[in-house]
Amino acid sequence: MRNEFQAWQEAYLAQINAALEEYLPAEGGSFNAIRRAMRYSVSAGGKRIRPTLTLEFCRIFGGDPVSALPVACAVECLHTYSLIHDDLPCMDDDDFRRGRPSCHKEFGEAEALLAGDALLTFAFELIASAPERTSADPLRCLKASRILAEKAGVLGMVGGQVMDLETEGTSLDAQTLTEIHRLKTSALLEAACLCGAVMAGADEAGCQCAEKYARNLGLAFQTVDDILDVTSTSEELGKPVGSDAENQKVTFVSLYGLEKAKELAEQTTRAAAETLALLPEQGFLLELTEQLLSRRS
Amino acid sequence: MRNEFQAWQEAYLAQINAALEEYLPAEGGSFNAIRRAMRYSVSAGGKRIRPTLTLEFCRIFGGDPVSALPVACAVECLHTYSLIHDDLPCMDDDDFRRGRPSCHKEFGEAEALLAGDALLTFAFELIASAPERTSADPLRCLKASRILAEKAGVLGMVGGQVMDLETEGTSLDAQTLTEIHRLKTSALLEAACLCGAVMAGADEAGCQCAEKYARNLGLAFQTVDDILDVTSTSEELGKPVGSDAENQKVTFVSLYGLEKAKELAEQTTRAAAETLALLPEQGFLLELTEQLLSRRS
Repeated sequence: MRNEFQAWQEAYLAQINAALEEYLPAEGGSFNAIRRAMRYSVSAGGKRIRPTLTLEFCRIFGGDPVSALPVACAVECLHTYSLIHDDLPCMDDDDFRRGRPSCHKEFGEAEALLAGDALLTFAFELIASAPERTSADPLRCLKASRILAEKAGVLGMVGGQVMDLETEGTSLDAQTLTEIHRLKTSALLEAACLCGAVMAGADEAGCQCAEKYARNLGLAFQTVDDILDVTSTSEELGKPVGSDAENQKVTFVSLYGLEKAKELAEQTTRAAAETLALLPEQGFLLELTEQLLSRRS
Repeated sequence: MRNEFQAWQEAYLAQINAALEEYLPAEGGSFNAIRRAMRYSVSAGGKRIRPTLTLEFCRIFGGDPVSALPVACAVECLHTYSLIHDDLPCMDDDDFRRGRPSCHKEFGEAEALLAGDALLTFAFELIASAPERTSADPLRCLKASRILAEKAGVLGMVGGQVMDLETEGTSLDAQTLTEIHRLKTSALLEAACLCGAVMAGADEAGCQCAEKYARNLGLAFQTVDDILDVTSTSEELGKPVGSDAENQKVTFVSLYGLEKAKELAEQTTRAAAETLALLPEQGFLLELTEQLLSRRS
């Protein structure tokens, strides 16, 4: 199963990277820096967890993953924009991202701001052009566009960033911290899974399952992030470790201690896996969920 | 006609402002600053030229303007995001906008960045939710979503900002300056007019007319902007005059001189009006075009 899973994951990865390469505005010509900046940040993408979830949720609900490729890539572009803007000096002021200079260190602040804006805008262009690109159903595309906008907006991901910003330096309780992570991390994973389900025409119950799975996956994912910031090395992470403690950031680790945080990660991972049990052909997703819990970076 | 035009314009304005008030995420609750920031910047909106164009183009092509209200408001939200990000310190670093402190002066840089991101995202949420809000046709909504994304993206408005940025301090020729303004200013006006036409189900020829009109209107609009920066007062403009000269910005005035720039504004306004002559019931749009040329702020 493990080898089969890996081959499967790599096939998705290759499909997603090829599609991103095809879809993103081509480099070249004059005033090229912004297109280079967009591709620079998107290409630092790693495992493409979000678009992989979109494709797989489309598949398990009986859809053709290929038809969901533009939507999957839209989720990845939106994710990338959020990282670029998050790294800006007025936000987290991070100089590195995945072992490379962050977008504004490489291209300057104004270009990074605009590259983020362009990627966010491009995400919606991709979804709206999916019927032409892959014969995706236009009504499902409009639904996906709404889901992505809602989950990424002020009542979703951006709302989480605001909460994060405004609670900086204050002592958080577990409930508020969980809400921040639900918005900052889970919301976009929910969009990824839901969009996949919607592109396959899944019914309401199926969509609810996809959303619930993603919510728990996001919490597990974030808790593991918090743990790795304490237990990993800079080489493994591709960014400085211990930055949470240095920035006096409240995390699940600072709130509960390392052991209890590990329990929490396992517990939310288990909750995600239990939701999957309600779905058909959940083998790949179970492995993926497990992999995210045990990752080292 | 003049009075009739004014009443008409005010009716649109009231409709647009009421819709924005209804649609935008409500203020209140915790972590409210971002929702306040979004409303702060949207409410500084003035004449709502772009959404007015959307509604009127919908009307003249036989559609119900009410059905296009969410799309019209989406164009305005997108326009507002572009102003917020444009004013940021890493971009134009403007402290004032329409006589009030710009968003980042009022709310801080991070909140302004996020308020812009949220408004951009919200624009696409509005379009995708239009079928539910106003029984708009979903296929037309998807088309409008694509148009807005294309015109606002890296090959449209954002592309224009990049060109503007990268040519700063260099000597521009008229062709490059025109291209910058076509992207920075005309592209979003094109989206406004095209989206209105599309929401009415206009045919290809009608859409081309709408786009051509908007392109010339944008160039006229920008040329008048350049002229006002030299001839107006700070009180009238609500922002410092002479900033173009101070920033050594190449404008149509610096390139051609004031008289020739005025000629150019008249010429592009005439070109816009001539395109309108091909359309039915163009009276309102002719007055609007005329008004934009003769404005004092």
